[in-house]
Amino acid sequence: MKLQEPSVESSGSTFTPLVVLELTLDAKEEAVAWLLSRIRDPQQNGGAELLVEQLGPGVGLQEKENPNMFLVGASRQRLLSGAEDVGLFKEFNDGSMRGFTCSNKHNFKDFQGDGDNFLSMAECQYIIKHELDTLRAKDETHVPGYTQTKLYPGKSIIRRLLSKGILIQIFPLHENEELKRLCFTWYKKVKLSLQPLDDIRHYYGEGQALYFGFLEYFTFALVPMALIGLLYYLFDWEDYDKYVVFAMFNVIWCTLILELWKRFSASLAYNWGTLSRKKAFEEPRPGFHGVLGFNPVTGRQEPLYPNAKRQLRIYLVSLPFVLLCLYLSLYVMMIYFQMEGWALTVHDEDPTFWTGILLFIPSIIYAIVIEIMNIIYRCAAEFLTEWENHRLESSYQNHLVLKVLIFNFFNCFASLFYIAFIMQDMVLLRQSLATLLITSQILNQFMEAFLPYWLQRRRNKKLIRKLRKRRTLEDKELPLAEQVRLEADMSTYLGTFDDYLEQFLLFGYVSLFSCVYPLSAVLVVLNNITEIYSDAFKMCRVFKRPFSDPAANIGVWQLAFEAMSVIAVVTNCALIGMSPQVKAYFPESEMQLILWTVAIEHGLLAFKFILTFLIPDVPKHIQIKLSRLEFESLEALKKKKMLEASEFSKSVQ
Amino acid sequence: MKLQEPSVESSGSTFTPLVVLELTLDAKEEAVAWLLSRIRDPQQNGGAELLVEQLGPGVGLQEKENPNMFLVGASRQRLLSGAEDVGLFKEFNDGSMRGFTCSNKHNFKDFQGDGDNFLSMAECQYIIKHELDTLRAKDETHVPGYTQTKLYPGKSIIRRLLSKGILIQIFPLHENEELKRLCFTWYKKVKLSLQPLDDIRHYYGEGQALYFGFLEYFTFALVPMALIGLLYYLFDWEDYDKYVVFAMFNVIWCTLILELWKRFSASLAYNWGTLSRKKAFEEPRPGFHGVLGFNPVTGRQEPLYPNAKRQLRIYLVSLPFVLLCLYLSLYVMMIYFQMEGWALTVHDEDPTFWTGILLFIPSIIYAIVIEIMNIIYRCAAEFLTEWENHRLESSYQNHLVLKVLIFNFFNCFASLFYIAFIMQDMVLLRQSLATLLITSQILNQFMEAFLPYWLQRRRNKKLIRKLRKRRTLEDKELPLAEQVRLEADMSTYLGTFDDYLEQFLLFGYVSLFSCVYPLSAVLVVLNNITEIYSDAFKMCRVFKRPFSDPAANIGVWQLAFEAMSVIAVVTNCALIGMSPQVKAYFPESEMQLILWTVAIEHGLLAFKFILTFLIPDVPKHIQIKLSRLEFESLEALKKKKMLEASEFSKSVQ
Repeated sequence: MKLQEPSVESSGSTFTPLVVLELTLDAKEEAVAWLLSRIRDPQQNGGAELLVEQLGPGVGLQEKENPNMFLVGASRQRLLSGAEDVGLFKEFNDGSMRGFTCSNKHNFKDFQGDGDNFLSMAECQYIIKHELDTLRAKDETHVPGYTQTKLYPGKSIIRRLLSKGILIQIFPLHENEELKRLCFTWYKKVKLSLQPLDDIRHYYGEGQALYFGFLEYFTFALVPMALIGLLYYLFDWEDYDKYVVFAMFNVIWCTLILELWKRFSASLAYNWGTLSRKKAFEEPRPGFHGVLGFNPVTGRQEPLYPNAKRQLRIYLVSLPFVLLCLYLSLYVMMIYFQMEGWALTVHDEDPTFWTGILLFIPSIIYAIVIEIMNIIYRCAAEFLTEWENHRLESSYQNHLVLKVLIFNFFNCFASLFYIAFIMQDMVLLRQSLATLLITSQILNQFMEAFLPYWLQRRRNKKLIRKLRKRRTLEDKELPLAEQVRLEADMSTYLGTFDDYLEQFLLFGYVSLFSCVYPLSAVLVVLNNITEIYSDAFKMCRVFKRPFSDPAANIGVWQLAFEAMSVIAVVTNCALIGMSPQVKAYFPESEMQLILWTVAIEHGLLAFKFILTFLIPDVPKHIQIKLSRLEFESLEALKKKKMLEASEFSKSVQ
Repeated sequence: MKLQEPSVESSGSTFTPLVVLELTLDAKEEAVAWLLSRIRDPQQNGGAELLVEQLGPGVGLQEKENPNMFLVGASRQRLLSGAEDVGLFKEFNDGSMRGFTCSNKHNFKDFQGDGDNFLSMAECQYIIKHELDTLRAKDETHVPGYTQTKLYPGKSIIRRLLSKGILIQIFPLHENEELKRLCFTWYKKVKLSLQPLDDIRHYYGEGQALYFGFLEYFTFALVPMALIGLLYYLFDWEDYDKYVVFAMFNVIWCTLILELWKRFSASLAYNWGTLSRKKAFEEPRPGFHGVLGFNPVTGRQEPLYPNAKRQLRIYLVSLPFVLLCLYLSLYVMMIYFQMEGWALTVHDEDPTFWTGILLFIPSIIYAIVIEIMNIIYRCAAEFLTEWENHRLESSYQNHLVLKVLIFNFFNCFASLFYIAFIMQDMVLLRQSLATLLITSQILNQFMEAFLPYWLQRRRNKKLIRKLRKRRTLEDKELPLAEQVRLEADMSTYLGTFDDYLEQFLLFGYVSLFSCVYPLSAVLVVLNNITEIYSDAFKMCRVFKRPFSDPAANIGVWQLAFEAMSVIAVVTNCALIGMSPQVKAYFPESEMQLILWTVAIEHGLLAFKFILTFLIPDVPKHIQIKLSRLEFESLEALKKKKMLEASEFSKSVQ
């Protein structure tokens, strides 16, 4: 664990700042003093036993400098015991992954000497966050200085301060040298190579690394489809008939890659120690409110909110709202098709330059309207999910993801479904698909990476210019105080949500309709290669460092991708049934054709489910390691009992 | 734990016989002596520390009395420590279920005094079986007296003796008084009431109790369908058109009852302590063979068999064989339909009494052929599954169940599918369904209960007559030695396999086609009511007592029933699409009708999966109890660590 500014002297002991707490400018002094003392208090007294230090004044670069910024760190011993608290899994001497315990620390592979480099900085930051989160009120009835901010025994102090806005943010610090190294191996190197997933995980934690692992895996998995698609494009491009084979390949491929990803992600998670790590008991999310009561699981006092009430809100308000929005989106789509039809008739009647331009107008309007609807819907979805008052952050996230997912799916694919199955116009379908893919690709890259980077860069430049004015910069490194303030001003990374959503929609384009536009896989592969670079870049340069998230899999997204691949079977079979090549086999009876198509579709679906069932989710060698661990713990328990029994019988004798 | 013959004096301590070991008549004396000493040895020396006693000679009722029968029991202390070994869950003082530990025994609800009635007899027998199963060879290279029967350190002795035929059987003893009580509350009582599931579980263990629980639940769940079916039968019987509503109800009902069963079974399993009980590491099954090597999980020496080889056997031999059998069964079916067609033409040309009888001949031949095929296939399936050489009994069972399931499904339903969808003859479908249901019902009851009972009764009567000859029976109770020999001769209960299979096929009749024959649910309900009685009767009177099996759910059968309910959606939708009532809506275009049917089917399937996803598998109040247990163990761990840390800091000071 090295930091560019090695250590700050604090009450005699060396101290590496890891996490920053930013309180409001006008935070009451007594509240600040109380918070600091609670953080510093030894654990026996219910404190967090962490080191905390006020950030010194900067060189005055910002107009209004917030003095209420605090650096939090911890002694090595405290971090190790914290690692045991959060249930960290580390590599053992025998190569297996085991839960870290202080008493057993010397048997862990990378534990050398005092264990200085045993924990990565991301892990230390995660531990500190966990310790801060579980810092609980004792007998305080309110936050000192804020009589309105009620507390009760067992309430997480940090979450209360966050929900009341007294604590503005809490974020981990970047580690400039390591970041530079990571940037280099990740995206600056000219040589083409795999992403340094282990380094990413080391710096950003497992959640991020899994996203980048998925991105890379998915891109590679699409290469065969892209190659076949390219061949189709080069040789059979105008021959829609030939897409039957391609569609079949599509369906099987999609199922396979998702199943294999599960295995791959299990390997990654095992090696990163998150696969068998038990989740700690989840705290209520900061925004959760309700009548004070006793949690039936922990016995702690906390707000309770009846589940029935939440279900009512979900099924009687949120669900109808989502359905209404879907209907609206459908309605807008129908207007778009009418407008386009009208523009086409105008152009056909009297084709001039202006009517030629008119042809584009409906698409442009439609794209803008959809974008606006997306933004409004996103806000509404967040509001509704907040209002549903979920107790856990994870359940909040799942409900939000589901809402946004369905709407985005509808917005992106409804028009394509309409063109494919109602209008049955394959040429138009191909055109729309190409347009959608290419524009969304360009737009995404611009909105996601270049825009935030440009804004950030402008701000930084201004700052450095100011700094230059005040004093000459001897070394290029900023002093710690400035560095921290700079990072505090960076945008907050909002998690992998939008990144996964983008991949989900791209997967949809490829799996649902790629048989009519074989180049789509090629486009997605190209997009993803740039996406890896732009995502890596924005993680390293644009955003605040996020706290690491000990994820064992990609969670609800696995389900979403699998649902998409089921829908893909249906659409691909329908497209096959509609292809002239297949229709030629059933010259007399359309009914026969449909019955065969349906039968084949059912067969494929059954095959898909059987395949999902047959392929184990965890590779054999990892299963063996997991069951060995379980077996050993059972044996140890037995041995311990036998010892106790023999001691008991001896004492009786 | 009471037994009719309270105790046998053995080496000074009282001794309740629980389990019987029967060795071959010609077992070598040194082998017997060695086995007994290993069973008696204290645990420190690697023995089982159980009590074992040779069964005294009977009054010579049987022609050839086997002297090598041994009664096994254990001291109370040993049983309690065994309960901890097998991870028994018992009710705690606070009403939750916790893993039993000897050190904490007084905090368990039913533990009074010395814990005399704390463990049920079934539990004691299970514990003894577990201890015998895990009695391992030390440094013996072979069984004394049998140089061919190799042993190696860590090999389970009992399993080796069983697989070599030196040990004939090992079975738990009945407990006559309790059995009488159970019989009374279960099936002899005249008053109609629910089955005494807790008593059944107490006497036979969780696996049996779950089967009877399922049988009862399933019967109740069918009552609404039976009622609606009866109404249809009474008022709409000849009007096939009306079955659309019934089919819809069918589909939704099937999904719901299976989901709710999962919740109900979770409640039962929780209250019986098997839901969160961890399975002990499974031993290789007795028939498993391979090259000696080291198990990668346990590190113990045991036969290893490469998984790839097993997969090859499954996919290259078993799978083709099953497919061939299915083809054969299809072929036989086609011959049956041809024969029936021929008989019909003969009868139509010149109807006499003899041609009237001829009409029944094909059905009878078909039924006999199917029954023969079933028997042959069952043997072949057992042979193949044995030959696949599965390491675990559970995996052997799953593969066997799957093979038998598919073939039985095919045999039972192929002809119905043919009649429904190829011949599209609803009247014939209804006739066949009724015939199949009624005959299978009568046949089953006869084969399952009355025949074995009659055989058993004849044997018992002979025995008692013999006994009368020798001496006058003062009391009606048999002496223990005779009782044990009598039980040893009873048929062995082969598990719930056939019972579940029967329910599975009945569920198929109801869910797949009941809309054309609404009375089928009524018939199944009637069948199940008698089934409960006959199954209870045969458990109590016909079979040896089985070892209890700590099941937490109905295992692979849940999956089988769910698969059936998916198929039911497809068939019901197809039947709806074929109904004249629906056809009337689409007078011009059959294509429109099919497309609509398919769309509705997809919608229903999607709805079904969403429903499965939305209904939690474990009821909320049990989830809370489970997570409280987990939370408490985490907290205890934390507290323990804190204590250690504070002790450490004190010792440093």
